[in-house]
Amino acid sequence: MDKGNNLRIAGKLAPELKKWTVPAKDVVDLVKSPKPWQQVAAVPAFPAENLPDQMLAKGERIVLDFGETLVGKVRLRLECLRSIDSPVKLKLLGAELPYEAAGDPETFESGLGRGWLQEDMVTVCELPAEIELPYRWSLRYLVVDVIAAPRTRFSITRAEVIAQSSAGQELPAPLPRWDREMRLIDETGSRTLRNCMQDFPEDGPKRDRRLWLGDLRLQALVNHVTFRRYDQFERGIRFLSGCTDKRGMIPAAVMMSPEPHGSSFILDYSLIFARLLLEHGRFSGNWELGDELFETAEKQLDFFRAGLDENLGFHHPGGWLFIDHCQELDRTVPMVCVAIWSAEALAELAVQLNRSAKKIDSLKREAAAWRKALRTSSFDPELGMLRSGYERQLSWAGQIWGTLASVLTQEEARAALTGLQKTPDAIGPQTPYLMHYFLEACRACGAEELLENTIRRYWGGMIRHGADTFWEAYKEGDDFYTPYGDDPRNNSACHAWSATPGYFLRTRD
Amino acid sequence: MDKGNNLRIAGKLAPELKKWTVPAKDVVDLVKSPKPWQQVAAVPAFPAENLPDQMLAKGERIVLDFGETLVGKVRLRLECLRSIDSPVKLKLLGAELPYEAAGDPETFESGLGRGWLQEDMVTVCELPAEIELPYRWSLRYLVVDVIAAPRTRFSITRAEVIAQSSAGQELPAPLPRWDREMRLIDETGSRTLRNCMQDFPEDGPKRDRRLWLGDLRLQALVNHVTFRRYDQFERGIRFLSGCTDKRGMIPAAVMMSPEPHGSSFILDYSLIFARLLLEHGRFSGNWELGDELFETAEKQLDFFRAGLDENLGFHHPGGWLFIDHCQELDRTVPMVCVAIWSAEALAELAVQLNRSAKKIDSLKREAAAWRKALRTSSFDPELGMLRSGYERQLSWAGQIWGTLASVLTQEEARAALTGLQKTPDAIGPQTPYLMHYFLEACRACGAEELLENTIRRYWGGMIRHGADTFWEAYKEGDDFYTPYGDDPRNNSACHAWSATPGYFLRTRD
Repeated sequence: MDKGNNLRIAGKLAPELKKWTVPAKDVVDLVKSPKPWQQVAAVPAFPAENLPDQMLAKGERIVLDFGETLVGKVRLRLECLRSIDSPVKLKLLGAELPYEAAGDPETFESGLGRGWLQEDMVTVCELPAEIELPYRWSLRYLVVDVIAAPRTRFSITRAEVIAQSSAGQELPAPLPRWDREMRLIDETGSRTLRNCMQDFPEDGPKRDRRLWLGDLRLQALVNHVTFRRYDQFERGIRFLSGCTDKRGMIPAAVMMSPEPHGSSFILDYSLIFARLLLEHGRFSGNWELGDELFETAEKQLDFFRAGLDENLGFHHPGGWLFIDHCQELDRTVPMVCVAIWSAEALAELAVQLNRSAKKIDSLKREAAAWRKALRTSSFDPELGMLRSGYERQLSWAGQIWGTLASVLTQEEARAALTGLQKTPDAIGPQTPYLMHYFLEACRACGAEELLENTIRRYWGGMIRHGADTFWEAYKEGDDFYTPYGDDPRNNSACHAWSATPGYFLRTRD
Repeated sequence: MDKGNNLRIAGKLAPELKKWTVPAKDVVDLVKSPKPWQQVAAVPAFPAENLPDQMLAKGERIVLDFGETLVGKVRLRLECLRSIDSPVKLKLLGAELPYEAAGDPETFESGLGRGWLQEDMVTVCELPAEIELPYRWSLRYLVVDVIAAPRTRFSITRAEVIAQSSAGQELPAPLPRWDREMRLIDETGSRTLRNCMQDFPEDGPKRDRRLWLGDLRLQALVNHVTFRRYDQFERGIRFLSGCTDKRGMIPAAVMMSPEPHGSSFILDYSLIFARLLLEHGRFSGNWELGDELFETAEKQLDFFRAGLDENLGFHHPGGWLFIDHCQELDRTVPMVCVAIWSAEALAELAVQLNRSAKKIDSLKREAAAWRKALRTSSFDPELGMLRSGYERQLSWAGQIWGTLASVLTQEEARAALTGLQKTPDAIGPQTPYLMHYFLEACRACGAEELLENTIRRYWGGMIRHGADTFWEAYKEGDDFYTPYGDDPRNNSACHAWSATPGYFLRTRD
């Protein structure tokens, strides 16, 4: 594999960003009370079309609601009846959620840094003035604080976002077979993906803004049933392939600056690469990419094999294992399952590519051996579930990945996935990422009703809490949860790995 | 006079702004102590060329000194050894003086508004990054506060100001006849004018940034002995002439946005217009402009005449009289003197333009009548000074303008101007603007030693307090004086009306 060539092709696949203009819809009040999500609601005060009549003075605040979460640049027009005797100075804060809009950036403390808060200060010496921020923000709300104003008051006569996406503005037509709730969930997922589709498929357009392998595969699923911009997924795959480390490991993420390079190495993510290649071939019909990168994907199994003992028991070989944002999660069972699932994907890809029977057979046999060993060591026949590690930990991740790797039979899997709902001592999922794999496991074992109910409960829950794009972090009943352990304002409220329910709804038999 | 035509010609005279790049000279510490001006000194810490080695993290502050006050746009280059995992966020504050640099904008309260504070917030998502602020600032110091930074520290590898002036970078060659102190004073005045020469001659490039008639005449004096950009003064004169009010009154100031228009009407300023025209003819050799605008200038005397009673006593006819920033100042004597001085200028202009002998004679006779009446009503023979108004107020302004209007004889004037130094109960000057007229009065009556000593003491005093451009407000011994009654950070430290000592030094016989 020629890394430079992959990066060159990735460069050539840079998309044209389609742009469209969205005017502010409402001026809202941010009302704090115990009831709404994160205890802040954005309550419409008056339509934004009446903004020009709202004369502004120092100390005043206007909160705009653009009606939906958008990625783009804020543009404001300020006007005044006469000339101004001193400059207008505004503090601007872009926010995806009301809680983020209501918070004071000056008091923000977070390990991830205030850098991700979407704030700016603008000084205007002459009116009328057209302000277009140099920043691309992800926002539904814009908080405008008037820090200084001339004696002659002024008003905001236009407020809009120049939105952008490589996928364009339009979301796919709604699904005829589903009810209003499911259509809304599907639409919300499509909007989430659309907003993440920028110069490359980003994990979250507000925070992080990187190409993550784990997100990319989930985005690719939704892309296949919505925008079908396979070129952008080839671009993502090329970037990843162009950034392997010296050992040949595919990075978990690519950072683009100053030059594209791998920024994290996570074994379970690297193993996903095989699946991503297989599905890219299936979805796009382009099998050449898989052919070209087959050995790169196959190489990732070596990093897994390095952790196996003579009994095929897996011991953490060092480095980062993800599976879920959950410190206490024992990752032994899930990791072996991801490897089985990866090896199976490689075997299927080898079939599609007419690779040698020997290769196909060897991959299948290895997967089967791992499966058998894992079942022997980890299956609790009484409970019908897999237990992970020395402490024989019971977790959602174990059953989910046990299902996807066929370590559990379909029947066992259906029982286990259903049983988890009534097993409070099982370590639960912390992220929509693992929740996606729960849906994928439901689909794999035919638990369609559980899949559907989960979508309605979990993703529908975000919508009931005000989401119009799905979130990076969502723990039912925990308004202030953040995987980063401090201020939830750093959570991204539009995040690729949360965008997938539409994939399941649109591929339902 | 065709106002539209004046504005059209003003428009055509728009200058090309010459630009040059000035790198930061030193990184300084802002050290508070009772000794320095405004109790803050900028003490060099290390040369700015070592900035790239200074790795920066959240919470750190760098204060840059560009070595001289400049007008232009700040440009920074930020670099990092590796890529960054979260954005860099900087708060930037441009300042002309250390006190301004040391203050917190968040606690700033002033009637003129925080709008004039030169602050910005910049977020950088990728490094290396080149930041060029959209704002034109007037600054010597740049305070960089690191509000957010990635785990990998970064550094400022380049810091510069793209300086600009219609007069170009170069200051005139030093004066051979003067000593080091006077050369520095002359240079500082030239730099002050240079920095005010922007799209038009501004009063102060940091705050206000308007075309003020009172400033324009003083700038024109310095321009004549330095940059000789007479075109820019014709532009200023055209703007003023294009913005007369319905009565034909010349505005004190022109604001350029949204369209050029008069923003203040001050009788003494309007009367200065005649002098400005006369001197423009003398300096540039272009008498056509004076010819064209003679009647406009003459018209201003009507607004003065409206305040005269049958005994030629002047009573404030309403509106704004300036003379100096000094509430308690009785303006009767100064105002009549300004009118005499204006009428004399018109008479001289009429001579140059070959206007009728009748016109010349009428202006001279009117000026003489006003002079005689004022002397009769206001001269205190015992003191040898003029007393102003019902309360017979003694002031510097009265003797200064009495000298310029020849209400005092040359001998009386010399005695009065010298005597003021030992007359503490006389209302003193509050601004460099009136101090300029003190110098002009000294020159008019041949008090050259007093003129020279005043320059060394007053303008030299600013330099001894750290000035490299002369200030809008300077009261000896009062570090925190501001004519706006609140926070001295709103004072401009580069202000046209303070720029004139070089005119006197360069025109010394």
